Amino acid sequence: MNEMTGDSEQYLKKKTFFDSLLTIYGRKPVLEALQDKNLDIYRLHLADSNRPAGIISDIIREAEARGVEILYHDKKVLSRISRNGKQDQGVAADLRLARQQTLEEFLEQKGGKSFKLVALDRITNPQNLGMIIRSVCAGNADGLLLPRAGCAALSPLVIKASTGTLFKAPLIYCDTLESGLKALEQAGVTCCALSSHANDSLFAFSPKGSVAYVLGNETEGVSDKVFSLCDQKLSIPMNNGVESLNVAITAALIAFHGAS
Amino acid sequence: MNEMTGDSEQYLKKKTFFDSLLTIYGRKPVLEALQDKNLDIYRLHLADSNRPAGIISDIIREAEARGVEILYHDKKVLSRISRNGKQDQGVAADLRLARQQTLEEFLEQKGGKSFKLVALDRITNPQNLGMIIRSVCAGNADGLLLPRAGCAALSPLVIKASTGTLFKAPLIYCDTLESGLKALEQAGVTCCALSSHANDSLFAFSPKGSVAYVLGNETEGVSDKVFSLCDQKLSIPMNNGVESLNVAITAALIAFHGAS
Repeated sequence: MNEMTGDSEQYLKKKTFFDSLLTIYGRKPVLEALQDKNLDIYRLHLADSNRPAGIISDIIREAEARGVEILYHDKKVLSRISRNGKQDQGVAADLRLARQQTLEEFLEQKGGKSFKLVALDRITNPQNLGMIIRSVCAGNADGLLLPRAGCAALSPLVIKASTGTLFKAPLIYCDTLESGLKALEQAGVTCCALSSHANDSLFAFSPKGSVAYVLGNETEGVSDKVFSLCDQKLSIPMNNGVESLNVAITAALIAFHGAS
Repeated sequence: MNEMTGDSEQYLKKKTFFDSLLTIYGRKPVLEALQDKNLDIYRLHLADSNRPAGIISDIIREAEARGVEILYHDKKVLSRISRNGKQDQGVAADLRLARQQTLEEFLEQKGGKSFKLVALDRITNPQNLGMIIRSVCAGNADGLLLPRAGCAALSPLVIKASTGTLFKAPLIYCDTLESGLKALEQAGVTCCALSSHANDSLFAFSPKGSVAYVLGNETEGVSDKVFSLCDQKLSIPMNNGVESLNVAITAALIAFHGAS
């Protein structure tokens, strides 16, 4: 184990803090977040160029009433904060999500205890991602493993499709799904890829110990590379010659599998 | 029992035949249906006003190749056939759906055998309706009870959201959900309304005999009138303070409940 200097310790503390932030953008989504008393809002970012009228005044008033720090930026800087200059409308906000963590943090927190995760391989449709978040949050899974690369960004569309459950969902981040699956394998977790071609049924599967179920891209399914990192392929048995299910439906069947 | 004259017999035969037809409309949906060899297409309807070029020639060529009868109509008559003059684009087609039947036919066919239905109370979003059809078709339910009144029409949007499974789904029609539930009650079927406020869990429920699960409107849930016609209320237990699930997700959890 490395001994940490005071600087590294501070850096890690800062990194952990920033990892717990979700930056949302757009005038209406930010106003709605400010109006939601259940959300912990860290900072409001506004472009200098916004005219302080209409919904912008509403946003400023709500932030002031809640004691949220307001920072003003050049439009270009704001677009780097929102990471979506085309759609931020000059407004962004950092939310503190208590339940958002990295895979390392999650594994450390669980210690040896068994868990069930749903993991995503290139889910690109915001509507699907939002519905998956909602179902996984409601179901009896311990978290949704979301690679920072490859999936749709957590945009206002995703927040809307999640009906706001994104803010309380147990989201677990990894850099790429490949790195995440390798870390899970090292931790002794059984990784199962869902595939309509698999012979074994999800419903007949009862894992020993911890398990992660991997859902693939809407069109292509799970990639070969990801398959090769999994221990098992599972399918959902379908009647009437139906060839596939919507990925959000599959996520819900997994999330609620074994619920009572 | 009434004795039937030859005329009534013929009328009933005709009625049964027309009940098995689904009229679809729009240039692209009709062309795609004509290209799908699994579909049984009865008639093609075209507006006189269509210019016989581009996709219209493709449609005519496909219909002729398959030996589908083509009828030409005044634009106004066509809009009565399609029941959607605004979106039919001068094109409609009657499909014969072998698996589409009335509730009376379904009950008679089942005799005394147990079955499981999913029934819909005012599902108005075409995207949801299509996803419900897809999941119920794939799951282990015996049919989807669809009232002719109150739900979204089986439009191209619904067909698309069902990814074409609408054509092979076991659809069962009743006039209104109220009349359907009364017929089910008389047949000794246990009718369960899904409600997020119910104490009993779907997952702990094992019905004796036949059962119908009623799903309510996206915003309002199941209506009071429909609740009063049900024997039982069931909920899907949710974690993390999530208050509701998408209705298509709920339909899938029901359709696959008990699958192995």
